[in-house]
Amino acid sequence: MEVSRSHSEALRREPSCTGLVARGSSDYPGALMTTDAHATPTADTQQPLYDVSIPTPTHAERARTMVAQLPTGTLCTVAMEPAGYPYGSFVTVAFEGGHPVFLISELAEHTKNLRADARASLLMTQVREGDPLANSRVTLVGDCTPVANPEAARAAFLERHPNAGYYADFKDFHFWRLEVAAIRYIGGYGRMSWVDVADWVAAEPDPVAPFAEGIIAHMNEDHADALPLYGRAFSRATALTTVTMTGIDRYGFEMSAVTPDGPRPIRVAFTEPISTSKEARTALVAMLQEARAKLSGN
Amino acid sequence: MEVSRSHSEALRREPSCTGLVARGSSDYPGALMTTDAHATPTADTQQPLYDVSIPTPTHAERARTMVAQLPTGTLCTVAMEPAGYPYGSFVTVAFEGGHPVFLISELAEHTKNLRADARASLLMTQVREGDPLANSRVTLVGDCTPVANPEAARAAFLERHPNAGYYADFKDFHFWRLEVAAIRYIGGYGRMSWVDVADWVAAEPDPVAPFAEGIIAHMNEDHADALPLYGRAFSRATALTTVTMTGIDRYGFEMSAVTPDGPRPIRVAFTEPISTSKEARTALVAMLQEARAKLSGN
Repeated sequence: MEVSRSHSEALRREPSCTGLVARGSSDYPGALMTTDAHATPTADTQQPLYDVSIPTPTHAERARTMVAQLPTGTLCTVAMEPAGYPYGSFVTVAFEGGHPVFLISELAEHTKNLRADARASLLMTQVREGDPLANSRVTLVGDCTPVANPEAARAAFLERHPNAGYYADFKDFHFWRLEVAAIRYIGGYGRMSWVDVADWVAAEPDPVAPFAEGIIAHMNEDHADALPLYGRAFSRATALTTVTMTGIDRYGFEMSAVTPDGPRPIRVAFTEPISTSKEARTALVAMLQEARAKLSGN
Repeated sequence: MEVSRSHSEALRREPSCTGLVARGSSDYPGALMTTDAHATPTADTQQPLYDVSIPTPTHAERARTMVAQLPTGTLCTVAMEPAGYPYGSFVTVAFEGGHPVFLISELAEHTKNLRADARASLLMTQVREGDPLANSRVTLVGDCTPVANPEAARAAFLERHPNAGYYADFKDFHFWRLEVAAIRYIGGYGRMSWVDVADWVAAEPDPVAPFAEGIIAHMNEDHADALPLYGRAFSRATALTTVTMTGIDRYGFEMSAVTPDGPRPIRVAFTEPISTSKEARTALVAMLQEARAKLSGN
């Protein structure tokens, strides 16, 4: 069965996870999919059902996409009291490019801490049902300082948090910005890396993410019959029973297929990146026609 | 109208928020309800509709109750890289008394950080719809070290996280414990303090918390007619329209009442602390009879 599809333009993109700078002993530089010692045995011992070199979001893109959807995080500062201890506090967050901005009070502990020592990090964690350690999270490390000309920070923050308008002009509230200098991404089990700062800054949040959930629900509820066809036409899988769409992004979509070996992941790439709900629909319809043609031998 | 009820035993309990050690300029030691500069104007300018000295959970109790219900938090450590920066990471948490325990891998960044410097904190944040800054959260600061005899930590952790059983015996995983030395509690707008460590350790999670949501839904759905009677009988409010139950704890329950001045909170205390769903029902039925008797002049 033919596995690879025509990715004339998309395949010229960097494959998954290159461009990541791996640091620390739990990272494996150079692997297409970074893994750690706790990756599931299944992933290590079974041949993937799909070509893992097809276009896939990089860690930088995954993490930028995640933080664009989260309103809050944990700010870590160096405590005044107890002096020198790392201190975690809850903050609302917006982004100016890849750099987090905050609107915080001089009365708050974290602000007093930052006035004395600018070193900080911000942890943002995906909120989801199920095994918490399967959730994605990212730690952004750098110096956090008051924004001298806060017009852009203010606009970004109030767009993300319109209700903050009522205290944005309080005298003790100011805009602060964390200049990201190191990025640690953990995308769940076996998907982790230190992300290069240039990649982080250049990456763009996935434009498909805001409506991904709706597309997935629609495909699983109304087009469940199409999913095994995608699986059979565009992966090495032959015997598929139930197939469920589990994800969609600008570069492709992912399914979980029940096979004689148990549930297996299948990723299928679009012929070119999409950015709207309408483009997703067009691509999925065209690929279904292509799948039917392939499977009928035409 | 008579406001106070018979709290023969309950009133001998310490009133709300005493026993808290206030530190930092945003705390107001000695106040029955600690407030900050951003408390809503309503709370400052209007006379409360109820006697605020009635039994109310302390900050230590509120925070212990909250963390008992949360499976995860942000661990803050001192980073090896970038060296000296406070580093936030996502962890699953259980508690031995008031002290958090973790089951973490030697391969993880936070573990490497703790091996070099035991100073740590743990932020735990209530997850709720609505204004995120209205959410409760607590920061627990102290030294985090491997547990020498991990039987109790292991039992506590696996009771809270049964799925961790499959990696609890992996060679690179160990149990760690954060010995709480300072506690910063923020219960939303205008409710914050440093909690005394002895109070933190002595406080017990509210036994009513696991079924509070069910009681609140039941009262609002099936006994909406009773709520204005509680309000009229046990508060200073006279003109009440819609009344909604918003909270229940071992010491009493809380309602939001629509009045000519807008929505106002009302707290009503039980005659003695409750600890089960059945006791809640018994107390609420008895108080409804008492309210009816009062309002009919008997």
